[in-house]
Amino acid sequence: MEGANVTKHPYLPRDLKLPHYKPNINSLGHILGVFFGFVAVLQVVLWIITRGKSIGVRVKICWFVTSGLIHLILEGYYSLYNSTLAGEDTYLAQMWKEYGNGDSRYVHDDTCMVAMESITAWVDGPLCLLTAASFYFPAMYGFRHVFQLAVSICQLYGDTLYFSTEWLEGFKHSEMWHPLHFWFYFFFLNIIWIIVPSINILDAARNLWRAQYKADDGLEVKSRKIVSKKRR
Amino acid sequence: MEGANVTKHPYLPRDLKLPHYKPNINSLGHILGVFFGFVAVLQVVLWIITRGKSIGVRVKICWFVTSGLIHLILEGYYSLYNSTLAGEDTYLAQMWKEYGNGDSRYVHDDTCMVAMESITAWVDGPLCLLTAASFYFPAMYGFRHVFQLAVSICQLYGDTLYFSTEWLEGFKHSEMWHPLHFWFYFFFLNIIWIIVPSINILDAARNLWRAQYKADDGLEVKSRKIVSKKRR
Repeated sequence: MEGANVTKHPYLPRDLKLPHYKPNINSLGHILGVFFGFVAVLQVVLWIITRGKSIGVRVKICWFVTSGLIHLILEGYYSLYNSTLAGEDTYLAQMWKEYGNGDSRYVHDDTCMVAMESITAWVDGPLCLLTAASFYFPAMYGFRHVFQLAVSICQLYGDTLYFSTEWLEGFKHSEMWHPLHFWFYFFFLNIIWIIVPSINILDAARNLWRAQYKADDGLEVKSRKIVSKKRR
Repeated sequence: MEGANVTKHPYLPRDLKLPHYKPNINSLGHILGVFFGFVAVLQVVLWIITRGKSIGVRVKICWFVTSGLIHLILEGYYSLYNSTLAGEDTYLAQMWKEYGNGDSRYVHDDTCMVAMESITAWVDGPLCLLTAASFYFPAMYGFRHVFQLAVSICQLYGDTLYFSTEWLEGFKHSEMWHPLHFWFYFFFLNIIWIIVPSINILDAARNLWRAQYKADDGLEVKSRKIVSKKRR
């Protein structure tokens, strides 16, 4: 029975306790293939469904549907099963166990990540799909920039928190500078959700400012005082 | 030298290490008086400065300036001095040491709180003041609802994270149900930033939707496809 309490796992920091850890049963190529295959097929399907729309709208729908499904499915799984997934064999658990090489906070119930990812999954996720829907369905078109602004701020907030907490903890949850684990998983896959939401925030804000200025020209009854001041 | 390593502090959990802790030099009434006195004087000053505006706009300016200054000054102090403030005697350090009775994460460098409060101080803070300015200065009036929406989402996100991380950790950082520490400091002072931002988000979104619908009526060149679909 010697060594029964010693946890064998590949993650950093080495003193992380994961007594229930089981190695992945599928290969790295298999797991990444399932994830990126799903993303690729989704892009093709979305591109076909959205024909007839402008290129800009099609790209946005692809982004928000893909983002929304990743939030709901992948991050939703972490939100629900964070404390047990290190010992599970489902595809989603195996994806997290592989990603854990780049950030071990994702193979256990790290409080801050669980809270942030739960908001991401159950708030950002549905909001992303609503944003995509508002670009797709003419009846919802008036909501598009408000939804885009709202969900992009949530995404940027969550990801800023993600990077800054890891920076504050001295990047101790993975091997720094490792090409796949640090650069691809931790840095590249996450910096996307800094860059794209930042662009989407500026784009939505610019459109809403423009709409607001246009609408304010017609305001006369309710905000008479302010409008009259403005015109002086 | 026996007991030299034993930390004496009033906070929970009892195993929290604060070797640099020094008790407050000013009384509870003095510290709370300075904080709430500042807030009260600020309301009077703001109410006078904003005369001539509508009641709704005046209330909003009071909220966003007060909120912004609390974020920048009080939360800014925590963002900068979290690791040392338990041993300091400034008013701001004493306020945090008193607040720490309701949530001990604020008397040391709790990673998640430092990251969240840094966003609150250095992003929400200036954005609050910009929002207030956009309600006050006619030249910035077109930005008001976008700023209000953006900063209120950030406030709601941060506060949701605040409550949910403490819930996930089993409310271990204060004495649960204590009338002053738990109910007033932890619950009441924070639930304000759940309720008011929620109202402000709905208010800004409704105004922006209305403006967008109005502006879309004039759209003809750039979004012809979508507009024509909408009109069918």
